[in-house]
Amino acid sequence: MKPAMSKVKRIEGVLSPVVTPFNRDYAPDAPRFVRHCRWLLKSGCAGLAVFGTNSEANSMSVGEKRKLLEALVAGGVPASALMPGTGHCAISDSIEMTRAAVELGCAGVLMLPPFYYKNVSDEGLYRNFAEVIERVGDERLQLYLYHIPPVSQVAISLALIEKLLSKYPGIVAGVKDSSGNWDNTKAMLDQFAKAGFDVFAGSEEFLLANMRGGGKGCITATGNVNPGAIDKVYRSWRSPDADALQAGITATRRILQKHPMIPALKATVAHFGNDPQWKTCRPPLVELTSAQEETLIRELKAAGFSMPGLAS
Amino acid sequence: MKPAMSKVKRIEGVLSPVVTPFNRDYAPDAPRFVRHCRWLLKSGCAGLAVFGTNSEANSMSVGEKRKLLEALVAGGVPASALMPGTGHCAISDSIEMTRAAVELGCAGVLMLPPFYYKNVSDEGLYRNFAEVIERVGDERLQLYLYHIPPVSQVAISLALIEKLLSKYPGIVAGVKDSSGNWDNTKAMLDQFAKAGFDVFAGSEEFLLANMRGGGKGCITATGNVNPGAIDKVYRSWRSPDADALQAGITATRRILQKHPMIPALKATVAHFGNDPQWKTCRPPLVELTSAQEETLIRELKAAGFSMPGLAS
Repeated sequence: MKPAMSKVKRIEGVLSPVVTPFNRDYAPDAPRFVRHCRWLLKSGCAGLAVFGTNSEANSMSVGEKRKLLEALVAGGVPASALMPGTGHCAISDSIEMTRAAVELGCAGVLMLPPFYYKNVSDEGLYRNFAEVIERVGDERLQLYLYHIPPVSQVAISLALIEKLLSKYPGIVAGVKDSSGNWDNTKAMLDQFAKAGFDVFAGSEEFLLANMRGGGKGCITATGNVNPGAIDKVYRSWRSPDADALQAGITATRRILQKHPMIPALKATVAHFGNDPQWKTCRPPLVELTSAQEETLIRELKAAGFSMPGLAS
Repeated sequence: MKPAMSKVKRIEGVLSPVVTPFNRDYAPDAPRFVRHCRWLLKSGCAGLAVFGTNSEANSMSVGEKRKLLEALVAGGVPASALMPGTGHCAISDSIEMTRAAVELGCAGVLMLPPFYYKNVSDEGLYRNFAEVIERVGDERLQLYLYHIPPVSQVAISLALIEKLLSKYPGIVAGVKDSSGNWDNTKAMLDQFAKAGFDVFAGSEEFLLANMRGGGKGCITATGNVNPGAIDKVYRSWRSPDADALQAGITATRRILQKHPMIPALKATVAHFGNDPQWKTCRPPLVELTSAQEETLIRELKAAGFSMPGLAS
């Protein structure tokens, strides 16, 4: 393996799984993507988990994602703030995308398990992650496991984490827990946080609890639209008003959660950024209906929600 | 769209979702793949549904699959016998792979719905298939929908078939129903077979019932190892001994089904072809244990199973 001399400092705080803008012909729109990433980093995000579930990452090819990643770095987004998703159902794709991220100097990668086959064994999943690590063969790699069984239908068990962490300490850097099950996040914290394994909640709903339990922040869909308020909870988690701040960001999340999340995020960016093209989703996702969009925006405004500096 | 003058005759009969051989370093092994495909066509298969679920297709990149497909055609496997899987979770990958198949002259393509996002709408799935058809833009395309909810977790509904068939008659050519639910296959036959929509059972267990209901054959995992006997049921479905023949192939399937299907198929090919390298699976799948393999081979032999002409 290449030496770890230039290992990037690990990201802590709020990360956004950045929504991906598409043209009307469904081509990824790199300039809009760069602009949104820059706005997120100015507005409270410590890092950008581009190519996550909320990015429609699995609706894009490896080639499309590599071009977008290169456009970000060329557009002035520091690679040290990037934690791209690099896990695919094809191990060869996971290797290619992970290698590309490491070579660009990304702080880490967030890796789904292979998600086509169901009911696979921990041994099979271990081989997948181990093979990617060995093939990339670069000590700069910092790999965050992505546990999101409601979507992937393939779980990352505590036993799998233990085996990977013991074989690849320093490389296996942490996890995003999007199980929606706090008991699972707590078990990850209790078993692995002291070993230098960074646990990120998969929703800001669990941000305060995660910080109190020894976690490092959250990687959350709504980080795309509400990064400042979520970051405030991250920075204020020891303060007396932390619970009140947490209640505020949870309330905003609830408004968005009444709708399919990805089109709701895109409708919100489109509205507050005054840029309707943002609404486009790639199939199989579809945009919100006009009625859903109207409800969403009305409720966000009634709650005093805004996205300062977004509209150009 | 390009004209349909050179539309290939539709395949009917038994198709095998061909297992893919890998080297010890997990690279696809094109020469072994070509050899197995040629054996299948000599041994009863009317067609080859390469890059299906049993092919570990979603564990391979588009680039790897395109190379294998080109190797098949270069190796003398007629494109008119090929129905490659071309559905990916990324629509850009589905377009690239479908276009490659059509340009090589393949008889058809077998297309999964995009399978990462769950609980998606029929409208979103319609847009996915329609966009692939429009972008490929070639009347030679014959598209078979691949319904396999136990694995993909995303279903192809009767309403979706109706909408696609009405918009793209001639291009939307049929379905493989791997739901395991005969009532669903029967509904597809009843509603669409007369409109020239070719229904293939996803398991030889339903082959006779499918033929009696107006279907065109089956695309089945065990076609990889038992093509002759399954083809005999296909050819003899009107004969008095059809039910007895059907019972025989179902009994063979039952022996294989006691184990994870893909490694069981590979262990069978490895044993009867005297070629242990066939056992390798790509992560996240793992080979059978020695005990499983021993049981499988012993039970197959006890049932009089053989693969004539496989061992070179």
